[in-house]
Amino acid sequence: MPHKQVVKIGLLGLGTVGRGVYRILTENVENIQRKVGLKIEVQKVLVRDTSKDRGIDIDPSVLTTNIGDITNNPEIDIVVEVLGGISPTMDYVLQSLNRGKSVVTANKDMIAMHGKELFAAAEANNCDLFFEASVAGGIPIIRTLKQSLASNNIEQVFGIINGTTNYMLTKMTKEGSDFNDVLKEAQAKGYAEADPTADVEGYDAARKIAILSSISFNTRVTLDDVYVEGITKISTEDIAYANELGYIIKLLGISKMTDEGIEVRVHPTLIPSDHPLTSVNDAFNAVFVRGDAVGDTMFYGQGAGELPTASAVVADIMDAARDMLRDVPGIIGCTCYNNKPIKPMGKTKSRYYIRILVHDKPGVLSSIALVFGNKGVSLASVIQKDVEGSTAELVLITHGTKEENVQDALIDIKQLSCVKEIANVLRVEG
Amino acid sequence: MPHKQVVKIGLLGLGTVGRGVYRILTENVENIQRKVGLKIEVQKVLVRDTSKDRGIDIDPSVLTTNIGDITNNPEIDIVVEVLGGISPTMDYVLQSLNRGKSVVTANKDMIAMHGKELFAAAEANNCDLFFEASVAGGIPIIRTLKQSLASNNIEQVFGIINGTTNYMLTKMTKEGSDFNDVLKEAQAKGYAEADPTADVEGYDAARKIAILSSISFNTRVTLDDVYVEGITKISTEDIAYANELGYIIKLLGISKMTDEGIEVRVHPTLIPSDHPLTSVNDAFNAVFVRGDAVGDTMFYGQGAGELPTASAVVADIMDAARDMLRDVPGIIGCTCYNNKPIKPMGKTKSRYYIRILVHDKPGVLSSIALVFGNKGVSLASVIQKDVEGSTAELVLITHGTKEENVQDALIDIKQLSCVKEIANVLRVEG
Repeated sequence: MPHKQVVKIGLLGLGTVGRGVYRILTENVENIQRKVGLKIEVQKVLVRDTSKDRGIDIDPSVLTTNIGDITNNPEIDIVVEVLGGISPTMDYVLQSLNRGKSVVTANKDMIAMHGKELFAAAEANNCDLFFEASVAGGIPIIRTLKQSLASNNIEQVFGIINGTTNYMLTKMTKEGSDFNDVLKEAQAKGYAEADPTADVEGYDAARKIAILSSISFNTRVTLDDVYVEGITKISTEDIAYANELGYIIKLLGISKMTDEGIEVRVHPTLIPSDHPLTSVNDAFNAVFVRGDAVGDTMFYGQGAGELPTASAVVADIMDAARDMLRDVPGIIGCTCYNNKPIKPMGKTKSRYYIRILVHDKPGVLSSIALVFGNKGVSLASVIQKDVEGSTAELVLITHGTKEENVQDALIDIKQLSCVKEIANVLRVEG
Repeated sequence: MPHKQVVKIGLLGLGTVGRGVYRILTENVENIQRKVGLKIEVQKVLVRDTSKDRGIDIDPSVLTTNIGDITNNPEIDIVVEVLGGISPTMDYVLQSLNRGKSVVTANKDMIAMHGKELFAAAEANNCDLFFEASVAGGIPIIRTLKQSLASNNIEQVFGIINGTTNYMLTKMTKEGSDFNDVLKEAQAKGYAEADPTADVEGYDAARKIAILSSISFNTRVTLDDVYVEGITKISTEDIAYANELGYIIKLLGISKMTDEGIEVRVHPTLIPSDHPLTSVNDAFNAVFVRGDAVGDTMFYGQGAGELPTASAVVADIMDAARDMLRDVPGIIGCTCYNNKPIKPMGKTKSRYYIRILVHDKPGVLSSIALVFGNKGVSLASVIQKDVEGSTAELVLITHGTKEENVQDALIDIKQLSCVKEIANVLRVEG
């Protein structure tokens, strides 16, 4: 069979990322051709409205509102999905794979929720299914884990994988601003969506850490497996106390391989202020990976945005085109050949930051410390401050301890007559 | 043709890295097989002395002192070169390629000097030639540039790519130690070699930045193209002054694409103390890449050592094995399809740190400033300190200026009667 001279793309979606993909593919066409060995051309673009002005130079005949023009088009080799969402996107992607078209997607929701089905379809049809842009935008973490670190047993993968919350926490830390004010500002600047739930409640990061865990530990990890806490309960007080104790608060996705299974969680986390992740500010992302051979590595870059995300999508397109040229799609397929258990959250171990409002009278600290001691939780440091009138604030950092012991202790502490409120409980890592 | 079930390796060398490669391939054999789809087995290992105890469990019949047992062995599919050096290594590698064996190498000297010839041989014989471990040890920067960032026009690549000098400069900065003392300590700990020239004079870093430039700018860049200065002239005074001015001194490899060609240089560099590279300490390496689409990215990890380097070598072996299984070696080949000129060092632009010993009398600063002004060099900041008796020390930081203007000015300044000595001239970036 003679080799193809042109690889033709069907692009699903022409929003921010789709526009970036189109721009890179057209403006950089010659370099891409020289690197891949054949021309890559956008044949059709699925949009909702063909008459909308998108601020880019695109031949209107390329636009279509009919998915069949792409999935049923025998000329189209690779379908690039940047629509987002699950329905109808999932159908479009499955149709494409079932017709032998390789798929490049930036859709973390779909991969985190339906990865198994999608990879099965890709394998059955001998297609590539690439998704570099689904995690941490322009940072090449998926291919790094699948290929460059493949000789390692990965021990931990964790990092800052949501730009919106990192932007917000950076502002709160540097300017002492309040959560609600920063959220409004982030929405005004387009860093946060009108409904910010997926970002601020941690679900976006949870989908990404599910994907990273699946690849790192060769075990299918889904959103349901991830323990999730967002940043909505982080107050300026918590940030100030953390600072006083030598920590910065970041929203981290964390996954670790342990003897009792995979720990996988997303929550605001205190990290020591000399930790490299504390210098990852604003909308930047960074992923740490610890492997048994390579040791500690970190990968840093922009986790979102038109061109950074499109950079990853187009790199995937180029790899899919290379595979097509040599007739070897599927050469790097699904690597979930293990089935390791997920460790229950109660069994995970961490240090804890606990802020408690108490009645300011003698013996309060000792009665609280007694309860912790009885539950096997030992304290590393304590700050006590008068807040107003008869109320004082206790801020405790524990030594490493099991989540369930801390939660048990807190149930009893809530019952103490001297305790007004458990204001916050956060985990400490690093 | 039925697919192979086992890929057989000929390993050239069983030193530190060779031992690491052997350990990972044997200890991790099952995971590797599941990821690649076939077993990888070490068939023969070239050593100088088969009777030497190497502290690893290896069947003596696998060892050979005869290169022909590997290059002429039709069973061997992939030759892994961790001998180092140019001769006879280069011959061994060419023989292997010419007999259709893919090659994985960690040899930066050979790639930086003879890359062109080697890639031509690989292409002619339809073989893979992988060299991830040749730059920055375990950090997957080569594959990242060749694949993950392939959709970008790379604008800059720079970083800390020599662990020995970074270890030394970290010690000098944190402990105020002297160059010669730190060198002795580094040699005692095995971080520096008995003859430390290649590291401390910057040649090791120069070979690595030549390789990174070649891939980033799709143009063959060799060691001869790189301007090189080492760290031997860095004194505790320079480090202290840099600190006072808000900078940290690091040995950087720097390469930039400009309208007048490729800038490529290795030299000690002052970087602002809040720059992410300043937190890369001890023997760690980090590479920054700026692409037109992805923006700024950074890749951090261990740049040397048995297992980190072997991690990269084995990942390359796994990729070569995958390509072999699908019969597509060479799918990612040489990408030097451009021939951009190298910009002469005199035409490069930087800011400069200049330390001058002068006779402590009125009008000295103004006569020096006048010379700089006449040569178009403008000063950003000045520190003047009495050293002893009639000698004072001037430390100047310039604004961005051309190298040749600074060098011109310094020739005239040396002639001034008030000037005793130009103690050091360093570049400032970031």
